[in-house]
Amino acid sequence: MNPDINASRLLDRIETFAKIGGNSHGGITREGFSPADLQACARLSEEARLAGLDSTVDAAGNVLIRRPEGVRGAKDRRVLLLGSHLDTVANGGRLDGAYGVLAGLDVMQAIVESGAEPAYEPVLVAFANEEGALFPQPFWGSKVLAGALEMLPDDPCDHSGRSLRHPLALAGGDLTALRTAVWPAGSVAAYLELHVEQGPVLEREGHTIGVVDSITGRTQLTVEIRGSAGHAGTTPMEMRRDPVTVAARVVLAAEDLAREQRLCRVATVGWMEVQPNSPNTIAESVRLTIDLRDSVPSSLENAEEALRTSLASLGKQADVHVDIRVDARAAPVATDPTLRAAITASARELGLPHRTLPSGAGHDAQIVARIAPIGMIFVPSIGGVSHVPEEDTAAADLVAGARVLLRTVLRL
Amino acid sequence: MNPDINASRLLDRIETFAKIGGNSHGGITREGFSPADLQACARLSEEARLAGLDSTVDAAGNVLIRRPEGVRGAKDRRVLLLGSHLDTVANGGRLDGAYGVLAGLDVMQAIVESGAEPAYEPVLVAFANEEGALFPQPFWGSKVLAGALEMLPDDPCDHSGRSLRHPLALAGGDLTALRTAVWPAGSVAAYLELHVEQGPVLEREGHTIGVVDSITGRTQLTVEIRGSAGHAGTTPMEMRRDPVTVAARVVLAAEDLAREQRLCRVATVGWMEVQPNSPNTIAESVRLTIDLRDSVPSSLENAEEALRTSLASLGKQADVHVDIRVDARAAPVATDPTLRAAITASARELGLPHRTLPSGAGHDAQIVARIAPIGMIFVPSIGGVSHVPEEDTAAADLVAGARVLLRTVLRL
Repeated sequence: MNPDINASRLLDRIETFAKIGGNSHGGITREGFSPADLQACARLSEEARLAGLDSTVDAAGNVLIRRPEGVRGAKDRRVLLLGSHLDTVANGGRLDGAYGVLAGLDVMQAIVESGAEPAYEPVLVAFANEEGALFPQPFWGSKVLAGALEMLPDDPCDHSGRSLRHPLALAGGDLTALRTAVWPAGSVAAYLELHVEQGPVLEREGHTIGVVDSITGRTQLTVEIRGSAGHAGTTPMEMRRDPVTVAARVVLAAEDLAREQRLCRVATVGWMEVQPNSPNTIAESVRLTIDLRDSVPSSLENAEEALRTSLASLGKQADVHVDIRVDARAAPVATDPTLRAAITASARELGLPHRTLPSGAGHDAQIVARIAPIGMIFVPSIGGVSHVPEEDTAAADLVAGARVLLRTVLRL
Repeated sequence: MNPDINASRLLDRIETFAKIGGNSHGGITREGFSPADLQACARLSEEARLAGLDSTVDAAGNVLIRRPEGVRGAKDRRVLLLGSHLDTVANGGRLDGAYGVLAGLDVMQAIVESGAEPAYEPVLVAFANEEGALFPQPFWGSKVLAGALEMLPDDPCDHSGRSLRHPLALAGGDLTALRTAVWPAGSVAAYLELHVEQGPVLEREGHTIGVVDSITGRTQLTVEIRGSAGHAGTTPMEMRRDPVTVAARVVLAAEDLAREQRLCRVATVGWMEVQPNSPNTIAESVRLTIDLRDSVPSSLENAEEALRTSLASLGKQADVHVDIRVDARAAPVATDPTLRAAITASARELGLPHRTLPSGAGHDAQIVARIAPIGMIFVPSIGGVSHVPEEDTAAADLVAGARVLLRTVLRL
């Protein structure tokens, strides 16, 4: 029997999980290690067991689902890890993360039911706390698994001071035994993550499958512009040192980097704060963030350098201080060419329109890349939106993505 | 004996009043009808009585200081009103308002001491709650006096819900008898207000005296720009409807109105709010205020029209909604040519460098203009700042301003 995805089972499970932490407006609030998240993990384990799979939880709270011990030759095969995460942001959508986990479960189940014998042993992981919405350690589970966790405080807490210790224990984890959850480099033959695009490209171009070539690199800057406060009525235009008008020029310089100069793929000012922020006062200072993304490290460097030159010149012209703080620089992560080729071949076999594209958002895959080759499959996001209740993907596309994942697993 | 200002008495009084509501950082918090403000009004009455003047409080809480009943012919002369206000903004400066009142007191005292007989009967007023910092009725006292008070709620309250009734009664006023505080049109021959410039013009140009030709008109707008929220990493530049980049263009369009096109004197964006204001989210909407000022009504109208045209075009280009709400339109108020000439002649006689200029800030004078010709005298503000603890004016300039006020009173 040829293994295949059970479309109605997959879609039903997506509906079931959307109710865990779901509100009446269609939003899902299932932050990592919240009661809703623990409930979702428990439900995943239960579904796996009902499907004849083994489910365990590691010290980090990652849920790991394997074929039963008795499967012939399972111990001798290297692991092919499939996964994503079940946690959400506050008032997020039902697909981000959960879709990849539930499609992975259907892939595992299809393999078990069909008696197929893949070359690598498939293992499904639901990574704990990818979003970091409650406990501010995003990529928590994948970082522990990949041995990439930074120094932790003795007692990691959420924003309201609640210790991680207790919810982690409830999830089946153990803060004192995180080392036992680390997988050594080489122990994973490959990692595959299926995810919604979270952007508008596939939908606009009529593609069903995205073959991710890289997870974008990112430079996060905070710019502070300090001028002179003044009375909006009494200070002549030519005597002003107005940081708001300089901030406006900074916003346009950032846009220009990506839009006209094409030094980086995207540039965004999403946060801005004016001081004292009073309608009849020329502001004293403005702070704003600039988020630059590109898949080529040198592009990010060039874009940042060009931006610094523009900002220095804008500050000088207006006689204001412009300070730039680097909040983070994350290097781009390339996916594995062999895995990309396998995904592409699977999409082609299924007759699905596909294209290669970068991931503009971060994913557990970029962490797992430290210990294994990674591959990522995208399906279209309706309206390009994510992390909102309106996040959605056509049912046919959800099923198509799961089928590409299954074929890719069998192909390797 | 030639009447003259007593410089040390004036400067000492300014120091004394700076302590009422003053904090250790040099800031003054003496909001209208606050305990500190009531104390300042009481102190003013006491100083007046010690100087042989009569002090009364009207139903609005305005302090009125007159020469004693017995002064020969006082009843037959029309009133020349001198004044300003004693209240401040939170953490404001020691001069704004208080300077004009205390200089007025010295003028009254100099006239009494010298036995001079001016053509008009001088009356000093300390208007209640000019700033509206606590009770949101700015120009309260002058509005009541000029019969210009808008409909009041039955029980006017401050932002924390405290009724005005009690503090007004403590000040000597009476909310139920406001009509008794109205002065009919024609009852005042002229109103003179001495004030710090609150801007940088006089200081930068080396002038001691400013002869105000008009109190600026003002158009206050709130602009709302609504685009589409999106993921900062996954939404390509050409698919964005980013309200932040449009807001940047709106800020520059407003600046351009005044700076390059010179359609109005000044244009300011001092307040801006981005939603949801998250570094890795393309914003959904931006709200910002635009404050336009000019002394010519048609200039304000033309500037607003040009701005509306620009904003419509910016919204269309970027496919975002741009809505403009008019928060207020205040017409400019001209000062009286005879009073301007008298102030100019007085400055010239005293050998003081002077120039004509508009007032970019609002003053009680613009309210009193409904019932009387008005004149305003400015002295330089160090660094052009006001409404801040650093607000200051050189002692010599403070004395010079008071002397110009006195000469002008005697000249009329």
